[in-house]
Amino acid sequence: MGALLAAIDIGGTKLGWALGTPEGQVLASGKRPTDPCAAPEPALAAMLEDLAAAAAARGETPAAYGVAVPGPFLQPEGRFLEVPNLPGWHGFGLTEHLTAALGDVPFQARNDANAGALAEWRWGAGRGADTVLFLTMSTGMGAGFVLEGRLLEGPLGFAGEIGHLRLSADGPVGFGKRGSVEGYLSGPGMLQVAGQEILACIQTGTTAELSGVDLSPRTLCEAAERGDSAATAAVARIATKLGELCALLTDLLNPDVIVVGTIGSAYPDLFLPTAMDVVRREALPRAAQHVRLVPSGLADRGNQSALAVAAELWERQA
Amino acid sequence: MGALLAAIDIGGTKLGWALGTPEGQVLASGKRPTDPCAAPEPALAAMLEDLAAAAAARGETPAAYGVAVPGPFLQPEGRFLEVPNLPGWHGFGLTEHLTAALGDVPFQARNDANAGALAEWRWGAGRGADTVLFLTMSTGMGAGFVLEGRLLEGPLGFAGEIGHLRLSADGPVGFGKRGSVEGYLSGPGMLQVAGQEILACIQTGTTAELSGVDLSPRTLCEAAERGDSAATAAVARIATKLGELCALLTDLLNPDVIVVGTIGSAYPDLFLPTAMDVVRREALPRAAQHVRLVPSGLADRGNQSALAVAAELWERQA
Repeated sequence: MGALLAAIDIGGTKLGWALGTPEGQVLASGKRPTDPCAAPEPALAAMLEDLAAAAAARGETPAAYGVAVPGPFLQPEGRFLEVPNLPGWHGFGLTEHLTAALGDVPFQARNDANAGALAEWRWGAGRGADTVLFLTMSTGMGAGFVLEGRLLEGPLGFAGEIGHLRLSADGPVGFGKRGSVEGYLSGPGMLQVAGQEILACIQTGTTAELSGVDLSPRTLCEAAERGDSAATAAVARIATKLGELCALLTDLLNPDVIVVGTIGSAYPDLFLPTAMDVVRREALPRAAQHVRLVPSGLADRGNQSALAVAAELWERQA
Repeated sequence: MGALLAAIDIGGTKLGWALGTPEGQVLASGKRPTDPCAAPEPALAAMLEDLAAAAAARGETPAAYGVAVPGPFLQPEGRFLEVPNLPGWHGFGLTEHLTAALGDVPFQARNDANAGALAEWRWGAGRGADTVLFLTMSTGMGAGFVLEGRLLEGPLGFAGEIGHLRLSADGPVGFGKRGSVEGYLSGPGMLQVAGQEILACIQTGTTAELSGVDLSPRTLCEAAERGDSAATAAVARIATKLGELCALLTDLLNPDVIVVGTIGSAYPDLFLPTAMDVVRREALPRAAQHVRLVPSGLADRGNQSALAVAAELWERQA
């Protein structure tokens, strides 16, 4: 192939960039911290300079740019909506800005869940399968759906907004809805579940090591690995809800593979066996037998997600 | 175009056949009653004879056959599974049978929800839209998804099996699951809801006209139109659950149009306004503003569904 592709990964804490190949190999990468409240133009300009310098050092120029952005992202207009973690970017017209900055070089932006689904399907844990669902399980809980070899966007680019689904009438709040997928399965959602379990332990006089630590998804999972009672109970509830979500997606979309990112991927043994038990119990038997629930298979998910967007664009234009 | 297409609609009470055009026009049609417990071969043979005779009367032979079958249907093997309303057809190898019967004439079978989605997208209420979801709302509650101009099947052909989703931990039973979509929104499910509301009226001494009639989806809806209290309460609960399902599908798939068949289509005013209120309240605002919830737009849905399967096949081969 030989083309050099540029990848930009826009996140709440950093802007990452990479140069890579259409086969998913990252050749060079870097990052800059994000000031979430600052205007996006200077940060993007610095990023494009980093990319241009890295490409020039190789004696090449990128053939296409792929950008992964936090959702919700209004695809037809290429514009940010009210992104929770990047208030400075609210309403920012990314497509308009990149059209001016990049001239004739083609670019494509997709929300990070959709970009992640493309990357897992091409190079990660969904490789070789036709129907691959990717669940971010990160600061937010979004999804990307590659269905029969094609990413589903929907007319506004909102397909896969699973965080907004309500799993139960009661439950922790996420995405403005009580009992939602994001309320249970995003990082902040998990901490709500953990808080309830810590409280239950305190009320029943059970020792909960977790009550003495700074609570984060990582400390929660580490405490569960050590057998702490509150953490174990919280992780079991979270894994069960993950299973209910996966059962629903299995009945609806008959996937080959569901790939779990970030937190589920860092601690697969805590979440995936329990979730798979729920899928077997709740989903249609044949569809449940067929689907695999697996951790992310990418070495550098952020950069490779944006790179997959560039690769898709580049192949479409080739 | 000019091709003559053959359509076969296999249902629990009748086998329907039609001859039609690739543009969805039905030129001739007929039907035979089904004995649900009888072996399928003689019934299919009679159907193919009817079709051949009708085509011969026009001096033509069909260029392709489309078949709509009740789900669950194992697409890769072209084989019936345990179809609730057709015990005689359990495990029947339709593809094998039609290959022997039709020789070189191409055919394609799809479950009736998927066939209905194709027909609504081509010729019905989803015409002109890219992403069209069709909900059968009939004896069963299945769905077909046309996503960005293409029917989603899934590797086993099970995509769209919404009847199996659980909407609440408690609730009427359908598809073997309590509180499932089929428990609330299939014909038999609606009657369970109605039965609960009649009981509530009897217990509170409220007059319920509905308790004196033979209960069917039609008598339920007619009683609601006349303002009967139990029927009105039941229809409101059913419409709310339809709305919750449509909100979930709107968040997941960002559709342009959701088309409701059979019962919802016969009584749109009873169900669709309430359901749309729930979608506006529950789904992502922009996706909810975008989607339309409408009754079926087909004059002859059964025959046109099978005809749409034939048309899709014929175009693919042309």
